[in-house]
Amino acid sequence: MNLAMIQAAATRLQGHARHTPLLSAPLLDRIAGRRILVKAECLQWTGSFKFRGGWAAVSALPVGTKGVIAYSSGNHAQGVALAASRHGLSCVILMPSDAPKVKIANTRAYGAEVVLYDRAGDDRDALGSTIAEERGLVLIKPFDNAEVIAGQGSIGLEIAQDFEDDAQVLTCCGGGGMTAGVALALEGRMLVRPCEPEGFDDTARSLISGQRERNAALSGSICDAIVTPSPGELTFPILQRLCGTGLVVTDDEVQRAMALAFEHLRIVIEPGGAVALAAALFRPELPDTVIAVASGGNVDSALFAQVLSRYGA
Amino acid sequence: MNLAMIQAAATRLQGHARHTPLLSAPLLDRIAGRRILVKAECLQWTGSFKFRGGWAAVSALPVGTKGVIAYSSGNHAQGVALAASRHGLSCVILMPSDAPKVKIANTRAYGAEVVLYDRAGDDRDALGSTIAEERGLVLIKPFDNAEVIAGQGSIGLEIAQDFEDDAQVLTCCGGGGMTAGVALALEGRMLVRPCEPEGFDDTARSLISGQRERNAALSGSICDAIVTPSPGELTFPILQRLCGTGLVVTDDEVQRAMALAFEHLRIVIEPGGAVALAAALFRPELPDTVIAVASGGNVDSALFAQVLSRYGA
Repeated sequence: MNLAMIQAAATRLQGHARHTPLLSAPLLDRIAGRRILVKAECLQWTGSFKFRGGWAAVSALPVGTKGVIAYSSGNHAQGVALAASRHGLSCVILMPSDAPKVKIANTRAYGAEVVLYDRAGDDRDALGSTIAEERGLVLIKPFDNAEVIAGQGSIGLEIAQDFEDDAQVLTCCGGGGMTAGVALALEGRMLVRPCEPEGFDDTARSLISGQRERNAALSGSICDAIVTPSPGELTFPILQRLCGTGLVVTDDEVQRAMALAFEHLRIVIEPGGAVALAAALFRPELPDTVIAVASGGNVDSALFAQVLSRYGA
Repeated sequence: MNLAMIQAAATRLQGHARHTPLLSAPLLDRIAGRRILVKAECLQWTGSFKFRGGWAAVSALPVGTKGVIAYSSGNHAQGVALAASRHGLSCVILMPSDAPKVKIANTRAYGAEVVLYDRAGDDRDALGSTIAEERGLVLIKPFDNAEVIAGQGSIGLEIAQDFEDDAQVLTCCGGGGMTAGVALALEGRMLVRPCEPEGFDDTARSLISGQRERNAALSGSICDAIVTPSPGELTFPILQRLCGTGLVVTDDEVQRAMALAFEHLRIVIEPGGAVALAAALFRPELPDTVIAVASGGNVDSALFAQVLSRYGA
């Protein structure tokens, strides 16, 4: 993995992914006590940065590829589905049968065939392998895939292009695909720091211990989109080499960040996409200027209404 | 008023107003049955296009101007306040004492001195004139001001720059400042059509009758930000010369548009800013491609939560 791969992915993304704006608001800066720029990836196609990685991976496939397959109940599913359909490739997404109906419907609407499996009874990986083999589909993993990392890295290139001063860049970190890509893109230019929700800080702990630590639980955070068991095999060495220490925020801070982004930036951020902004707002030890990646905005309307009722002005 | 004035205003706005993105979503287009691009002015500084007109008017004042004054409880107040403070000018905003506390607080936070008046007992215009005279302040009207119209017109220049095909442009129309500016900017290029809420369709009726009609009521719409008694003196002749027929939407359609923008575009639009999108989504007689200006996103969190609860997916 290197800068050239990211630049190549960015070239393939040109005219297809949206160059998202860096938003800010004087009243938000006042609350934070520092200057905050928000890279609004919630405005990306399919509502999250995952479209970048999906497009980068799909567009790197050799001519003659029949189609792709992915396991995801969320943002990766939608990003891969739209990227595949725009390339005229068939796409199968394996989703748990208890996934929210809206997510299933949206993934189908982006042109994918959704295959549901039972979380308790079915072996997802075995099922996926069988389908992939029978139909000749290529598996696109959500973060441990070099082209996916390169695609997410295009966020870093855009940040470097749009902001010339110095800043720390805060990312919402699950498996570390976006964090690794952005860190590579900004190497020697800006320090990237992964942000995680309390109780699911595998990356922060791994960066301290020097080995891939695991989370005790696999669910139970409001930030479900970025809960992964541990940093990826491909991503962790990159994070270890390039990233600053991790930042950890509470679910309460995440929801306050969502409400403040609503009020002052007029964007919709999902909990997993608000972790970096929460750190930017509420961690006192940060420098004067930070760039927080708001990585996605696919949030259930009932949950968002609840957050506004509790944390709104 | 002519294109040159708008271009001059746009030059003064360069680097100060945000060039807002044209957003779209495949799933939104599917619901509408046409291609919809949303000019996301809710992402503008202070959360609405009013910052453009405020900046254009303030930056056109002669050197030595002491300060400005405006009457507004909403978006115009915040736009003028921030524009004035960034120019180092003092700014007085007259607001009714029953205006929402958040709006008063935000206007103050942008650097303005807020003078409250009693809607029932005080004569706002007399009070404003007295303060303006005593302190030597220049009044900035919300729409019947040539520089304000020119500033709002910069939206049209950006649309022409970002979208090369043909489309009708739908605007949220109150006094008609933005509609007039955009129509002038796009003259001979795209047809602009003003959109209004049911019961407050003074502009639509005026365009039919050929004279400035008045609304029966001055309040009572969810779209409070764009409720004005009648089209402006300066704006109406421009609308009459350049605009297509008006479009009228229901409060129900406005709220559905807000919920759909939340879900598919991940932006926050206030009711008055969702009127054009509602028309784009729900008026069958429109062409295949329309550009809807989402003019603002300053909406109370409790109201937004209510809209999501009722109209969310």
